[in-house]
Amino acid sequence: MNTLQLDLGERSYPIHIGSGLLDQSDLYRKHIKGTFTAVVTNETVAPLYADKVVKTLEGIGQKVKLIVLPDGEEFKTWEVLQKIFDGLLENSADRKTTLLALGGGVIGDMTGFAAACYMRGIKFIQVPTTLLSQVDSSVGGKTGINHPLGKNMVGAFHQPQAVIADLDTLKTLPAEELAAGLAEVIKHGAIADAEFLSWIEKNQDALNKCDPAAMEHAVRRSCEIKSQVVAQDEKEGGIRAILNFGHTFGHAIEAGMGYGAWLHGQAVGCGMVMAADLSVRVGLLSEAEASRLKKIIEALHLPTQPPKLGVDRFMELMSVDKKAEGGEVRYILLNGLGQAKIQTVDDDLVIQTLIANGVV
Amino acid sequence: MNTLQLDLGERSYPIHIGSGLLDQSDLYRKHIKGTFTAVVTNETVAPLYADKVVKTLEGIGQKVKLIVLPDGEEFKTWEVLQKIFDGLLENSADRKTTLLALGGGVIGDMTGFAAACYMRGIKFIQVPTTLLSQVDSSVGGKTGINHPLGKNMVGAFHQPQAVIADLDTLKTLPAEELAAGLAEVIKHGAIADAEFLSWIEKNQDALNKCDPAAMEHAVRRSCEIKSQVVAQDEKEGGIRAILNFGHTFGHAIEAGMGYGAWLHGQAVGCGMVMAADLSVRVGLLSEAEASRLKKIIEALHLPTQPPKLGVDRFMELMSVDKKAEGGEVRYILLNGLGQAKIQTVDDDLVIQTLIANGVV
Repeated sequence: MNTLQLDLGERSYPIHIGSGLLDQSDLYRKHIKGTFTAVVTNETVAPLYADKVVKTLEGIGQKVKLIVLPDGEEFKTWEVLQKIFDGLLENSADRKTTLLALGGGVIGDMTGFAAACYMRGIKFIQVPTTLLSQVDSSVGGKTGINHPLGKNMVGAFHQPQAVIADLDTLKTLPAEELAAGLAEVIKHGAIADAEFLSWIEKNQDALNKCDPAAMEHAVRRSCEIKSQVVAQDEKEGGIRAILNFGHTFGHAIEAGMGYGAWLHGQAVGCGMVMAADLSVRVGLLSEAEASRLKKIIEALHLPTQPPKLGVDRFMELMSVDKKAEGGEVRYILLNGLGQAKIQTVDDDLVIQTLIANGVV
Repeated sequence: MNTLQLDLGERSYPIHIGSGLLDQSDLYRKHIKGTFTAVVTNETVAPLYADKVVKTLEGIGQKVKLIVLPDGEEFKTWEVLQKIFDGLLENSADRKTTLLALGGGVIGDMTGFAAACYMRGIKFIQVPTTLLSQVDSSVGGKTGINHPLGKNMVGAFHQPQAVIADLDTLKTLPAEELAAGLAEVIKHGAIADAEFLSWIEKNQDALNKCDPAAMEHAVRRSCEIKSQVVAQDEKEGGIRAILNFGHTFGHAIEAGMGYGAWLHGQAVGCGMVMAADLSVRVGLLSEAEASRLKKIIEALHLPTQPPKLGVDRFMELMSVDKKAEGGEVRYILLNGLGQAKIQTVDDDLVIQTLIANGVV
């Protein structure tokens, strides 16, 4: 097992990465103070892992309530979040209750937001079971739900007590979810570590096959990069925004197609192709570099062709993105592979990117 | 104008108390950084003051969106909160947007919670227009909404940039809302300042008539007491809980009768009578002191007789109160008038209080 530390002063926490962690009682015992734990998961993950986690928690003396939500981005809504509050209140959960998020990014975001809001804030633990959540969403304390007019528009910064990433859970992951997770792995290389990006390029077969050693390296290096960025800028006043590379275009795709139609990671994969194209037009990236990145994205079975939403609709969808400030969208661009830059861009250039990528 | 300061390090803010503050542009200009302000108010307050506030904000160059919610505790729900998010997203509100809460406690709590959650946190200003919100809810950063199974169960600690309490707004306050506000004024005397409680006793006629000089003193001294308590314990890890004197019983009344049937302040008034009765049974307060407090509560036109919810139901409602921890309800008792004490109490004594107060 590898353990990294996310340094955030009194909100610091460990990220445990390894095999066979789900039933290691010591990992839970360290991070749970009260006597009641609510395990929040979804209908897909529950039959696979809920029993193991619940029994391990009961083994360390916890009273446990299992809350099973429907599976999918389209359920990342207030109505479904309410089921967590219902489960807590029906069991008279108090302020010392711990929530445990067992699942992917949607479960982690919703459980974290429930923990942020229940009685104005209780503790929670992230137990990510998808590659996307292990390499990205479980780390850094962003929580929230979607609004019909925008993704993750309602939420909170609320750091977990710990992240417990059991690599064994990746073995049951459907191929397209594996690919969706690899999108964020590529992203970490693209924005911060050219060497890691080359490693991904060289190990694409191992990654596509979900080879354990390759996965361990991909998860660990991703968590290291993300932790370093978050430690510098917890609430995204500046540099943390580089983690949104590919997300401005990606969010527009997700919102335009209706949440759930594209996996988040798929939209980010395609969004990175578009953001790299824009970086070329701005003069920060060579065409060869953009083309190399696109090939890596393709090789990891991610879409590179955006849906035909039309230029006007695409521009409109991007303008409501959270990264829009004072009416201007701030784009995350690549200043060469392995380095990111945040800046506004003339609409003309963005429109060129949209047309060149065939959104019309 | 009096200006107090709530000291919370980098989250410190001023509380301005005085007449004619609603259209003082300097007060707003100081606390607004962006170019867009959303004013959130309700159907009762809007016709009285919205125009004045909106024009003043426009006068300092703000683009302003007015969001008018229905009036009443029964609308302190997610569905109504959603209207604030709708208004923000439809106007492409970004992270530099300021929310301004113009109204009573419900508007302040909901607007503050919307500010806490919108894009994971934006700034807001409290402009309380009821006595209850001026002396209590606008100060201290507690925000939230109700859940069908409990009051304020979903929320956040999110401090405003400033509180602007215009005493002139109290002139339009219905008599029972004035009384409801006075409940919290009495509470501040009861838990922290015996001399202030005597002042209330002596000035009951002036308070009932909403005399300006009496109101100014009542609001200022209440805000001072509350600020001092909150500055010691922002997130209610300990002493801040004394501000909940009367609230454990009061919340049970509100929940048991259905939110909106009793005004919050009325429930707190009655709850203080019950908490004082319990303090006598525990041996912390004399019967004469409890009786004196009850007379003050009566004199300010607050109910002292709880509804006949039955002992079992009442006990059940109190057990889901936020102050319940590890299965035990912690009661806020009076250790003599002017001093509070937090402790658990045997159910037997609580049941005696419920029976003696006729909840059967």
